[in-house]
Amino acid sequence: MALSTQPYKGTRDFYPEDKRIQNWMFARMREVVERYGYQEYDGPMIEPFELYAAKTGEEIVNQQLYWLIDRGERKLAIRPEMTPTLARMVAGKVHELPRPVRWYCIPNFWRYERPQRGRLREFWQLNVDVLGGDPLLADAEILSLSYDLMRAFKGEEHVSIKLNNRRLMDHFFGTVLGLSPENVLKATKAIDARAKIGEEAYRQWLTDLGITPEQQGQMEEFFHAPFEKTAEKYPCAGVEELRTLFRLMAESGVGEAVVYDPTVMRGLDYYTGTVFEMYDVSPENRRAMFGGGRYDNLVGLFGKERLPGVGLGMGDVTLRNFLEIHGLLPKLEGTIDVFVGLPRLELRATAEGIARACRERGLNVMTPLTADGFGAQLKQASKHGARFAVLLGERELAEGKVIVKNLATGEQLLHPLSEAAGAIPGRS
Amino acid sequence: MALSTQPYKGTRDFYPEDKRIQNWMFARMREVVERYGYQEYDGPMIEPFELYAAKTGEEIVNQQLYWLIDRGERKLAIRPEMTPTLARMVAGKVHELPRPVRWYCIPNFWRYERPQRGRLREFWQLNVDVLGGDPLLADAEILSLSYDLMRAFKGEEHVSIKLNNRRLMDHFFGTVLGLSPENVLKATKAIDARAKIGEEAYRQWLTDLGITPEQQGQMEEFFHAPFEKTAEKYPCAGVEELRTLFRLMAESGVGEAVVYDPTVMRGLDYYTGTVFEMYDVSPENRRAMFGGGRYDNLVGLFGKERLPGVGLGMGDVTLRNFLEIHGLLPKLEGTIDVFVGLPRLELRATAEGIARACRERGLNVMTPLTADGFGAQLKQASKHGARFAVLLGERELAEGKVIVKNLATGEQLLHPLSEAAGAIPGRS
Repeated sequence: MALSTQPYKGTRDFYPEDKRIQNWMFARMREVVERYGYQEYDGPMIEPFELYAAKTGEEIVNQQLYWLIDRGERKLAIRPEMTPTLARMVAGKVHELPRPVRWYCIPNFWRYERPQRGRLREFWQLNVDVLGGDPLLADAEILSLSYDLMRAFKGEEHVSIKLNNRRLMDHFFGTVLGLSPENVLKATKAIDARAKIGEEAYRQWLTDLGITPEQQGQMEEFFHAPFEKTAEKYPCAGVEELRTLFRLMAESGVGEAVVYDPTVMRGLDYYTGTVFEMYDVSPENRRAMFGGGRYDNLVGLFGKERLPGVGLGMGDVTLRNFLEIHGLLPKLEGTIDVFVGLPRLELRATAEGIARACRERGLNVMTPLTADGFGAQLKQASKHGARFAVLLGERELAEGKVIVKNLATGEQLLHPLSEAAGAIPGRS
Repeated sequence: MALSTQPYKGTRDFYPEDKRIQNWMFARMREVVERYGYQEYDGPMIEPFELYAAKTGEEIVNQQLYWLIDRGERKLAIRPEMTPTLARMVAGKVHELPRPVRWYCIPNFWRYERPQRGRLREFWQLNVDVLGGDPLLADAEILSLSYDLMRAFKGEEHVSIKLNNRRLMDHFFGTVLGLSPENVLKATKAIDARAKIGEEAYRQWLTDLGITPEQQGQMEEFFHAPFEKTAEKYPCAGVEELRTLFRLMAESGVGEAVVYDPTVMRGLDYYTGTVFEMYDVSPENRRAMFGGGRYDNLVGLFGKERLPGVGLGMGDVTLRNFLEIHGLLPKLEGTIDVFVGLPRLELRATAEGIARACRERGLNVMTPLTADGFGAQLKQASKHGARFAVLLGERELAEGKVIVKNLATGEQLLHPLSEAAGAIPGRS
């Protein structure tokens, strides 16, 4: 039986036109984060299973993790996210690394999910983290950088940064409503899942956590109150952090982009302070684009010094959907500068000489790998999107010359053999 | 118990200084292959197990593959090499893709091996393949490109391309010695393993395959004979291909780099013609750097049209060792252009304004994320390798000016606030 040409469900084949788009997206990401002084790092695709069992959260570990046992009986997991690897690596050199530690990477991740719009089993994600420094200045930087990411994609007018704080949530659910820390976590998961599971299941979930109908009313009020009202009614450290962060964002010139939203929870268990979501507020794509938050207790899991951090994760699937919906994907050009024809095999040494000279000049050269007539080869050159063609005509060669054809304008010029490579302009 | 900070055995953490080296190596690779008109593609990290069971070879599939069962009971494998994915993707669009198909990628692979010098469980590998075109012209291109890869790393003087042909091997072992196709494959594996297993085990292996002592003598002679002698004694299609390829390489200006070596086998079962190895011939590092070969029957496994191809795979671990041994790794500079100091929190809005203006100019900017004195912050700036620092002195600010310090020369100049960003030259 013939093997299937389909990739594994929930994964993508990147044919060159798709890879070009992905590379373009990644290049924009790199530009932005490097302008903030972040340095690229990377870790292994597979980590010990325990690394995720510790803090990543029940749903991912129990339902979504790809795990395996290696031939030496070690239980391993394919990374579903980067932060545990980051924390491990930072902990490993915590006394040597210059601070603040500003790192980024764009790795692929695996989660066993039902494939659907915006969710695949293999996806790439820009991860940007800063560890150390004043926590709120660091939070503000990650938020400004998030906004600049959207600006780099010309998408800033469609989005808003929804801001919340886990300490405010802990205060409200723990101190005000009196829930145990464990039930606070469960309540936040219910809130996260609300839109997906529907009102009835949501209310049942809360009731099962011992949250009375009266308290549920108090929650509704809390979720709909503007920041100043909550700040007045429930003063706490989380409120102070939010207040400072709004001021810092205004200082950074992006105050307008940030709004308070107490329903933003972010799924990961390890967040301890600021949490945020970049949200597409346009009617045609109302959804979270990406997000992040502060985690103060991760590096400490490795028995070293505590080193608090904050980070963001921006996935490639959601971003590409966003860019397509808003018409923000550019038309990317091909990468072939010049096609050097081969009308007869006997002329290969000549053709190779020209191709080599073009490559030395830094041009991207394509050769046909079969001898064929002008017409067929010009067709091939256009199919591959070449900008120029060098044609070896018998009559011209007899005079030591070749034809250089501009495939965009159709203009043809004769050049001496040794000057053909130099006659082709570089990519502007 | 604290979690370990060590990565899984046989894998690497890429701290920024390592990632910078890897990125530098990958950028050189990209430059070379794009100058030959190759386009980047990528496929999923995980494929159906059957994809490798078909043709990758017994050792990899039975002893080295990382495999798992997903939550839907599918047997999957983490890719140990790229060619099966490439063949699957090409087969999937075999009628649409413009030919020749020239593709490359630099993915990571996993093999369960005993970690040792040059061999790790996770490694990256440049894969370059061309499918279609005249087979020998395509083979010649892959060989020229291989040589240009070594040139791009300034390593060409240390290496030699060892060339062989599977059809010549099939002729010698099959027709001349009379081995069955299955035993020919096994004999090539014995030859591949010879240096590793020692002479005695090697001879025993051959004897077990029914190769008589007399035939073993014939083999020794065959392995040591120069090309012209073999060509004369064992004329066959493989000999003709080798002869043509030597001529084509001379035409391409790299004839000197290529030598005939009948002991080059390459481990993969799917090779059908040309096989080669880039070999470091220097006394301090005698070893195969990378290699490749022609596979004519892979795309056909998917029940579509046959489309023969040839490719190379160049691993990052061996390459980095090579560059280190020969002193060819450049000193890579940091990426921070300017450090904008923060002496007091009250000056953050001013500092942010300067940082933002620098970023708009395309400069990579670092800010300290804590307020501190000049001395401490300048130390921080140098630690991160910044080129310039912008310092907000009280006296200078009172006059609307800031200090711009060149951290390489120590030179300090005063600039009006609004002109500070413009005063910092871009990276040359």
